[in-house]
Formats: sequence, structure tokens, C-alpha cells
Amino acid sequence: MQKLKDLMRFKFFGVLSLFLIFATYLYAHTPDEGMWTFDNPPVKQLKEKYGFVPTQEWLDHVRLSSVRFMDGGSGSFVSPNGLVMTNHHVAVGQLQKLSTPEKDLVNTGFYARSYEEELKCPDLELNVLVEMENVTDRVLAAAKEGMSEEEALKAREAEIAKIEKESLEKTGLRSNVVELYHGGEYWLYRYKKYTDVRLVFAPERQAAYFGGDLDNFTYPRYDLDVAFFRVYEDDKPAQIKHYFTWNSKGAGENELVFVSGNPGSTNRLYTMAQIKFQRDYYYPLILDYINRRIAILEEYAKQGPEQERQALIQIFGLKNAQKALSGEYKGLLNEDIIATRQALEDELRTKIKSNPDWEAAYGDAWETISKLIDQYKNRVKPNFFRRIIGSRLASLALQIVRYTEEIEKPDGERLDGYHDSQLEERKFYLLSPAPIYKGLEKANLAGGLAMSLEYLGKDDPFVKMVLKGKSPEEVAKELIEKTKLDDVDYRKKLLEGGKKAVQKSQDPLIVLMRKIDPILREERDWYKENIEGKLTIANEKIAKARFAVYGKSAYPDATFTLRLAYGTVKGYPMNGTEAPYKTTLYGLYDRALSFDQKKDFWLPERFWNHQKDLDLSTPVNFVSTCDIIGGNSGSPVINKDAEIVGLIFDGNIESLVGRFIYNEKTNRAVAVHSAYIIEALRKLYDANKLVDEILGSATRAEH
Amino acid sequence: MQKLKDLMRFKFFGVLSLFLIFATYLYAHTPDEGMWTFDNPPVKQLKEKYGFVPTQEWLDHVRLSSVRFMDGGSGSFVSPNGLVMTNHHVAVGQLQKLSTPEKDLVNTGFYARSYEEELKCPDLELNVLVEMENVTDRVLAAAKEGMSEEEALKAREAEIAKIEKESLEKTGLRSNVVELYHGGEYWLYRYKKYTDVRLVFAPERQAAYFGGDLDNFTYPRYDLDVAFFRVYEDDKPAQIKHYFTWNSKGAGENELVFVSGNPGSTNRLYTMAQIKFQRDYYYPLILDYINRRIAILEEYAKQGPEQERQALIQIFGLKNAQKALSGEYKGLLNEDIIATRQALEDELRTKIKSNPDWEAAYGDAWETISKLIDQYKNRVKPNFFRRIIGSRLASLALQIVRYTEEIEKPDGERLDGYHDSQLEERKFYLLSPAPIYKGLEKANLAGGLAMSLEYLGKDDPFVKMVLKGKSPEEVAKELIEKTKLDDVDYRKKLLEGGKKAVQKSQDPLIVLMRKIDPILREERDWYKENIEGKLTIANEKIAKARFAVYGKSAYPDATFTLRLAYGTVKGYPMNGTEAPYKTTLYGLYDRALSFDQKKDFWLPERFWNHQKDLDLSTPVNFVSTCDIIGGNSGSPVINKDAEIVGLIFDGNIESLVGRFIYNEKTNRAVAVHSAYIIEALRKLYDANKLVDEILGSATRAEH
Repeated sequence: MQKLKDLMRFKFFGVLSLFLIFATYLYAHTPDEGMWTFDNPPVKQLKEKYGFVPTQEWLDHVRLSSVRFMDGGSGSFVSPNGLVMTNHHVAVGQLQKLSTPEKDLVNTGFYARSYEEELKCPDLELNVLVEMENVTDRVLAAAKEGMSEEEALKAREAEIAKIEKESLEKTGLRSNVVELYHGGEYWLYRYKKYTDVRLVFAPERQAAYFGGDLDNFTYPRYDLDVAFFRVYEDDKPAQIKHYFTWNSKGAGENELVFVSGNPGSTNRLYTMAQIKFQRDYYYPLILDYINRRIAILEEYAKQGPEQERQALIQIFGLKNAQKALSGEYKGLLNEDIIATRQALEDELRTKIKSNPDWEAAYGDAWETISKLIDQYKNRVKPNFFRRIIGSRLASLALQIVRYTEEIEKPDGERLDGYHDSQLEERKFYLLSPAPIYKGLEKANLAGGLAMSLEYLGKDDPFVKMVLKGKSPEEVAKELIEKTKLDDVDYRKKLLEGGKKAVQKSQDPLIVLMRKIDPILREERDWYKENIEGKLTIANEKIAKARFAVYGKSAYPDATFTLRLAYGTVKGYPMNGTEAPYKTTLYGLYDRALSFDQKKDFWLPERFWNHQKDLDLSTPVNFVSTCDIIGGNSGSPVINKDAEIVGLIFDGNIESLVGRFIYNEKTNRAVAVHSAYIIEALRKLYDANKLVDEILGSATRAEH
Repeated sequence: MQKLKDLMRFKFFGVLSLFLIFATYLYAHTPDEGMWTFDNPPVKQLKEKYGFVPTQEWLDHVRLSSVRFMDGGSGSFVSPNGLVMTNHHVAVGQLQKLSTPEKDLVNTGFYARSYEEELKCPDLELNVLVEMENVTDRVLAAAKEGMSEEEALKAREAEIAKIEKESLEKTGLRSNVVELYHGGEYWLYRYKKYTDVRLVFAPERQAAYFGGDLDNFTYPRYDLDVAFFRVYEDDKPAQIKHYFTWNSKGAGENELVFVSGNPGSTNRLYTMAQIKFQRDYYYPLILDYINRRIAILEEYAKQGPEQERQALIQIFGLKNAQKALSGEYKGLLNEDIIATRQALEDELRTKIKSNPDWEAAYGDAWETISKLIDQYKNRVKPNFFRRIIGSRLASLALQIVRYTEEIEKPDGERLDGYHDSQLEERKFYLLSPAPIYKGLEKANLAGGLAMSLEYLGKDDPFVKMVLKGKSPEEVAKELIEKTKLDDVDYRKKLLEGGKKAVQKSQDPLIVLMRKIDPILREERDWYKENIEGKLTIANEKIAKARFAVYGKSAYPDATFTLRLAYGTVKGYPMNGTEAPYKTTLYGLYDRALSFDQKKDFWLPERFWNHQKDLDLSTPVNFVSTCDIIGGNSGSPVINKDAEIVGLIFDGNIESLVGRFIYNEKTNRAVAVHSAYIIEALRKLYDANKLVDEILGSATRAEH
């Protein structure tokens, strides 16, 4: 008997070992990881893990139904009449620009009951990715044998500008060359562009952002973070062929779902030297910068309710960044994460070393990057603080000075951002009629100058030139009070007058920018010459090393271009227990009352007045393992039938380290449930017409 | 201007520094820490931090209204008619013992609508601490100059037994000498004892333990973890002078509250050597032991619903311990916590070293403990596994063998637990009519023997003697099937027959215990001789060192005796956001539906049938900074007016490390809100009569 038992125990451990090996295999090879380009979707993973094979038609439909918000965010078409869904927090900048002291759309929300009532946004551009072309060979061929790294970099930049210009001229489409895999590939992306975008619906911010900065980047959540716009062409609602249909039931637990959106940036392919630079130099600096900027804005907001309204969106953005970056920084301080990343790098480098050809071609790249970073370290502060921080007017001034100067050069020699193919976009923002608040500008500029002074010291040439021995407050007051750049017509006149008009201008901000632009360019040139050229070559080597070892089985770091993520709807271990895969309206009322409606946990009146009309078991938010990051805000969550089941609006706190590494166990994308959007629109906002359009039960004629 | 600004910044930092110093001072000196004895309440802290000075009358009233559950837990009187409130999970052992396969009180709950319907518990003893007397001098004086450490220990033990016996004979009260501050003080505690305790009310377990093992030791929570008993004297409800009145509003956010209960044990005064021993030897072993015992029981429970019912309470207890110990272990693995504890020890030792008298008297104690632990390390496994694990019948057999043997010795020479003053209690449990399940016994015994075999090896003398080469299953089957010890009358006969009857007995468990008791005693004697005596002396030195340095400004480690904790009702930072100070009934429904009522998140029918009757904004659970630990379960939470505002039932996951160190920022005691108990009793359980008694609106006559 004893022997039998021992055998059984052995068998048990045997099975366990097999299971562990299998689990490791599963984990190592098919976690729900990746932000995949549409030219290289994770077909193998989807087939093996979920038995689902997306057709080319499915992929094209999803891509063409997806929308990019140029000011940062994602969205999707949800009706044939140009209706676009995104997050309230993606829309909030436009909401503020459409608001006045008398009519604050951020705090009250907005609903257009007819096309006529829809509000035209001052400077919102939406993009649809209509074509993708691999231009890697052409870009790389621009750098000829014998060129220095800097020359090679410039040649490539010129070639990219040329490709973009040719494409724009040929197709009339927004044409951007995207660098993927840190230089491993270059793709020309062509976008259909919508610049007549009108606001259709937004809830009040308190419903969208219930829980405020505290609950931001956490889960369980209870947010109605949704807004609707409509794109127009020729002053009529655009007719859209590819749009997502709606599924009000949403996705069940463990169901396969997809996210199609524009993740901003990740650093998953960074070398350890780059990661440690981030940890030891970048994050401490950027977090200090953000904390100070928040303090400046909060001080300004204290002056009164109108000042508070003006500052709100900037504070919101900065606090969002503060929480995200703090979480990322915390991840970098975690030794396990550093060790895991180190192990991945060691594995790649060992494999490269094992093949003499690879070693000869790529082996020195890591050391090169490490040396470049050593060189850059001490230059970080001037690089960051030798500029005018925080003032929109100052930024407009600099852009006008550069615009008029750059357009006189051949296209290939211009600063990036001023190539022919980019000028239309540049003008769109330079001539935006969005309001500019001079009080806010003054506070921001004074605070920014004080930061530069503190970080660089009073003897720094940039600081000397800007302050001339005066205090930041004095300088900011003078510059902002006297400038006329808040007037769109004045900006237009300068642009049209070109370099001559700018050089004659006595506007104090223009005068200042004319003087300091050479210093800014010097900083930039130093970086290009000493760091960027060499870094680009080294990064390309590492990208090639990866392709050599792993093939194209990986996805590139995020680049604010369209990506497809996949995963399952699933809770996760949290704080000693489990977070559920979804929340319900019961939970919204619970969280409000748990805090006695204090802090950011109060509910707008309509939630109390209409509580009895609501089905409190309606799912509110849900989580999935989909791999996302900032920029994905507003992305649709769709099921296998490409129906909308939710709307991405956040990641949980455990996902913040996702900038560096994805962990399927706890990394979750947080979305608004499709059922809540319908329930809220109907019962809280009396927006039945909008619901009918979304659900496809209304034709255009009825609208 | 610039200068002014710099000055202001300087001032700001100056103020900040002052604030930090003050905050550190506050934190270092008055966190809401401590489990205080009633002879040394935290009067100074309460006065300074909260401006509240408890009178002696208040303290006496609170103490006399508090109840200890001898089988582990706390409670309180809540009516003049002997009504006692505690947790469902404290009551659940009795609920199981009162259940039958046909009538499962654990799963269905129970409510006695009249005294006649109240169910008498088979073996429940409740205590009220009526008198406390400092006997330190008398105990310490028992150890005479020239005695070895072991002799001194024995002399003190004999003196303690004598004090207890004298007191019992004189007062008739349960009399226990308690060692406080690890030997710094000895107190004689006298308890009024209730052994006729009857069950009045318990909800079904799913309402009490909603969220199950997953949510156990976490917060936010939604549990109705309450039960009511009544103590009887002379077959009539006992008339109680000191009981708590009820406050249905509960406590508001930031309100000062108190917990009066019996924390089981803490290790806050351990030396670093002891802490590291726990981390490296004790926790790995005990966690493995618990995991194995759970596996044994879960295997048994799979046999059928009745087996599942039998095993449930043991599994529950073990899983509770598993989660608690895992949390504690995790705390020990946290380097910050180790460093903090190290700093505290360093501070004390440095202060001792600074005074030559102190150094001479106490300075060697830490090193002594460290050496003792080195000696003990390798003996841990035999010490733990040379015994019969998990079988209640085996435990009864051993106690009967020892009882009959020990009572023939003079009181001072007996094993602890068999002194005259302890015999009544011993018999109470030995003759308990609570059911014993032979199937469960067999499974537990076989599993326990297998563990001893694995840890000690087949050549260990204990293992050899018990197994005689057979398998654990065979031995367990034989012993359990043939023993008659499940029959209370047989146990009674053996006890009454004394040593002679036991020696003649052919009952296989009695026979076995007669044989192995010498081995068990040998283990015990080795420990006493080599470790305990010396450890006691060293601990006493450290206790005296502490008194010398800090005075009696500290509280002793928990000893499952009555303590007073204080704190405020307050949320805490959790998982990137904040946990609210309370939860509501909305949240209960949310959590159930968030999991689609799966796992342990389903709600009993009555919660759906009566949902419309409930006020969903009723607070369910709440948290406070009060310093508690296991054993505090069932403790009343009271306000300054000594009114019940809640009922302790758990600590949050962050509180588990509280065994070693208290952290006010995140350590929280979790309680059932007084309002929920009333709302549930009235609207879900139709127990209006019980509510009337609690609220004092019913007189005894009406009942």
C-alpha cells in the first residue's frame, strides 16, 4: 500500500510537472499579448488559442470602421451617417473649446436632437487608415555607403518627406511614413481625413469620469466615458460604408474580443540601457515636471470658478499622465520586472552570439546604445528645459516663426513637421478658432519659466536671453499681455506675410521666438548629430537581429497608428480576492453612497431622479485581457462578428507597467459596456433618436 | 521679486519640514495602535489625539459587557436577558454540532421565536472578565536563587497552578494567570463562566460569509457575519447588569470607536532572531501542513453531500488560517517590514547599551534567544510531527490517558491543562455530546499519519510505534473503526474508572496513546529543559529592558485575553484608488451580479424575494483603524457612549502583517454595520422580536 501511495504521489508530481511545462509553454507562447499591425495580424495565435481565423474581409472591415483622433485617441464609426463613437475624455478638449463661461458643456453635457443642433468642432481631425504600403527598402536605400550616421539619418528623413509628398500629391490623402520595430520596417500609411467634425452627444463629465482622478487607471469602475461626433463632407453627414453594428448584450465572461485602435507608445523593445535610463533619468524628471505643472494650474484655478473651468482640462490631462507615469515608474522600480526584461535581452543576445554572422552584423548594437546614453545623460536637463514650457501662445509663436522660415527651404531640408505634406495639418491647428485664455497663459508661462530657471540656473544662455534678469512673473506678464497672437486673424496675416512679415513683427512673443529659435535648434542639432543618427543605426541592427532570431512573429512597439489587440473578457486576482469581469449599476450607486457622495463620488441629479427607471443589473464596465495603452482611449471593443460590445476607456492599475512588459494575469483593458450606453442614453439622457441610429432602427430619412 | 519667490519657496520647504517632523512625531507616538489591557488603557493617547478620557466606570462597563468565547472568539451582551452577539463564523462550530444530515443549520440558518425554541449548545463556554489582580511578584518570587532555568520555570509553573487553584476555591470563578509582555507581568484573571449557552439566531452561511474564501480577509465586503446566543443560569435566561445598548445609525466617517475583545496572539515583541525563525522555519512548515490538511478534507468532502457537510467547518477554519498565515508570511518576506522591525530592535538595544546597569542586567538576552533558536531549528519537525494529527478521537484518547494519570500527582507537578483549576473545563470538552463522524476521523487520521511518515521517515521511533510497518490508511481504519470513544458514556466510564480503568482498556486508541504518550512527553521535556526555561528568562529580561527604557507606555502582545483597541472609521488607499469607509446594500447586489452569482457570490433566495423591502442605501460593512487580530472576531465596535455601532468580523488583507507590525495607513478592522443587522433581521429574517430586544423596546415580560 505504501508503495502504491508513493507511486501515486510521484504520478501526481509528474502530471503537475507536465502541467507546469504546458502552462509555461502556453504563457510563453500565447498570452493575449500584442498590438498588431493590420498587415501582420496574430492569425496563428487566434487560430491556436481560440480557433478563430479572421478573413481579409473581416480585417479590412474592422480597419476601415476604425477612426483615429489626431489630438490623441481612437474611435469608430457606428452608423452609415458618419456617427463616430469615442470617449468623453477624448472629446473633452473639444467640449471645452466649444464652451463659454455661460455654457459649460464639460459639466452639463450636450445632446443635439437634430443635425442642425450639432456643434462644429474648432480643430478636430479624424483619420481612417485606407491604405498601407511597405516602403522599407526605399527608405533604407536613401542612406548610401560611406555616409556618416548623421548624414544617413538626414538622407532617410529627406526620403521619407519625399515619399509623403509624392503620396499626398498623387492621392490627396494624409500620407505618413511610420517607423515600425524601431527602424526594422517603414510603412507608408494613407488616411482619409475628416476635418468637419461635429459634436452629437456627451454626458456631463461627472457621469463620464465618476470617481475622478482617484479611480482613474483602476478597476472596478462605473464610468459612462462616451461621446459621439459626426463627420461631415460638403456640409452633409458623410456616408460611411464601413461601420460597426451594435450588440447590446455585450460580451460574456471568457468571450473572445478585439480592440482596434491607436496605442500611443510602448517601450517593450527598449534595451536594458534604455530602460535604466528611463528609470534613473527620464521618470524622475518628467514626474517632477508634471507635479509642478499641476501645482501651477491648481493655484490658477483657485482664483475663481471661471479660472477653474479654464484650467480643468489641462489639470485633468496632467493628473492622468501623473498617475500613468507613476505606475510605469513603479514598474521600473520593481526588481522582478527588471529581471524579466533582462532575461529577454540576455536570451536574444545569446542567440545572436551563437551565430558568427549575426554577431558580426548586430552584436555591437547594445553596447553602442549604452554608450550613447552615457553621453546623453548629462544633456537631458538642457534638452528638456531650454524651451518655453506650458504656454500655447508661445508655442504658436514658435511655429509661426518656423513655418515662415522652413517653407522657403527645399522640402527635404526642412524640420520635421514642416514638410509640404504636413503643412495643411500645421495650418489647421495654427488657425484654430479655439479660445485662448490670457490669464491661464500667463500663469503657465510664468511657472514654466520658473522651472527652466530652477533647472538651468540664471547663467544659462537660454534663461539669460528670455528673462534678462527679470522675474518669470514679470516676463510672462509682459509677453502675454502685449501679444496679439490670440487673434486668429493676426496669426493668419503673419503666415500669409511669410518670413518678411514675421521678421518685421514687433509682437513680443514673435520677437522672443526669433531670438531663441537658434538655441532650440542648436539643442536639436546636437542631439541629431551626437545621438539620434547613431541610435537609429543601432536600433535598426537590433530590429534586424530580432527578425533574424524570431522572424516576424512579434509586433512592433506602439506608434499611435492602427493596431489590433485580442483577448478574453475576464476578471483577475486583486488585493487578496478577485475583481469581477464586469460591474453593474448597483455598484455605481454603492460607490457613490459608500463615500457619502463626497470627493469625486457624487452622482448627477438625473441618476437619482431616474434611478427607478433603470435596470440596476445593467452591466456598466467590463475588463478584458486585450493589450492596450494610452491612445487606445475610445477604441471599440468588438466580438468575432465585428459587433460593438464595448468602448475602451482605461487600463487597470496593474496594466501601467504594460509600457515595458505585458502580464496576462493582471493586465486588463477597461471598457464601457455596450448595454450601459444604450440604457443611459434612453433612460437618463432621453436620447432615443441617437439610440435608434446606433441600433440601426432609424434610417437617415427619419433622423 | 525673484528673491522673494526664493524666500517663499524656502519658507514653504521650512513649513513642509516642520510638518514632516510633526507628522513623524504624530506617527511615531500616536498611531491608533495597540491592544491594551484594561488595567493600562491608552488614556494619554485618547486624550491627546481625541480629547476623550474614559472614566473608570466606562472602562468597567465595557469590560463587563464583553464576552469571551472559549473555543476562540469574542462577543458582547446586548440585552439584560443574557443575549450575546458574536459572528456567524464564531458560532459556526456550534451550528454544525447542532445540525443533523436532515437539518443543516449552517446552510439554512436558525431563528428561535421564543425561549423554548432556543437550542442548547453541546460544548460552548462563555467568559466575562470580572476581576484582575497583578501577581507578578508572587510568580517571580517562586524561582529561587541558585535554581537552574528549568527548575525556575517549573517552580513558577507550580506557583501559577497554586494561585489559580486558590482563587478557584475561594471565588468559584474561572481563574487563569496570564503572562503579559512575555513574562514582564503576570496577572490573575477571574472570569464568570457560562456553560448553558443557547442558540437564538444565525443567518444562512451564504449571507454571513458572502464572497467565501476569496473575499475572506479583504475589503470592501458585504457580510452579515452575525449570530446571537443567550446565556442561561438555572435554566433561565441570565440577568445581566452590564450590556451594550444599540446605535442603529452606526459611526460616521472619522468617528472615534473602540473594540473590546480577545485578540489571540501577536508577535510584535519578538526579537529579530525569533522573527527570522518564523520566516525561515515556522511559516514554510505550517503552510505546508495546512495545505495538506485542506487537501485531505477536500478529498473526503468529494464523497457526497453529507461528507461535504461534515468537512465544511474544518475546511473553512483551515482556509481561513491558510489565507491569514499566507498574508503574515508575505509580510515577513517584505524587506521593508523586516527593516522597520530591525530598526526598532536596534533602537532598544542601543538605549540599553548606553546605560551600563541596563546592559549588565539585560544586554545578553538577544544573543541568548538567537542561540536557543539555533539549537531548536533542527528539532522543529519532530516537535511538530511526533503527534497524532487531525483526529478528534485520538485527541480525546490522549487526554483521557493523561487526565487519569495526572490527577494522581500533586497539583504543582502536573502537565499544564490538568491542574485542579482546569479540570472542570477539561471534562466539559471531554464529555461533550457533539457528534463525531467516523468517516471524517478516518480520513483525517490517515492523512495526518502520512504527513508524520513523510516528514519523519519510516525509521522514526514515533512513526515505527504507530504504523508498525503498515500503511497510514490501514492503521487509521483499524483504530477508528474499533474505538468506542465516540460514545460519551464510554469516555465517562473511563474517566470515572481512573488510571486503573484506562490501563485495563483494550480500546485501540487508548492502547496506542498509552504507548506513545512517553514519546510525546519526551519531546515536551526536551523543549522545556533546553529551550523554554532559558527563553523565559531571556524574554523576561527583554520585557524589563523595555519597561526600563519606555516605561509602561506600551501594550503587551495579544494573549487571547480581554483588550481594548481604539481608532477611527476611515477608508484607506487601495489598489491605486481609495477603499471607502463603508459599503452599502447596493454593493452586495453589485458584487453578486458582477460574478453572475457564480463561485461564492450567489445570494440566498430571500435577498431576491425581499429586495424591494430593503433600503439599499443601508450601510453593510465598515472599516476602522482599530488594532485587532484573530480572536477579535465577534468583538463589539462601540462609540464613546459605549453603544454598539458594529461587529468586528475580519481584517483587510493589509492588516495580516499586523501580527508583526501595525501600519495605520492601511491596517483596517472590518465590521458589520449596526444598521445592517437591524435591517436584515427585520426585513429578511422576520425577526422583529429579536430586534425589539436588541433595541430595548421589549421588556423581559413581553418576550
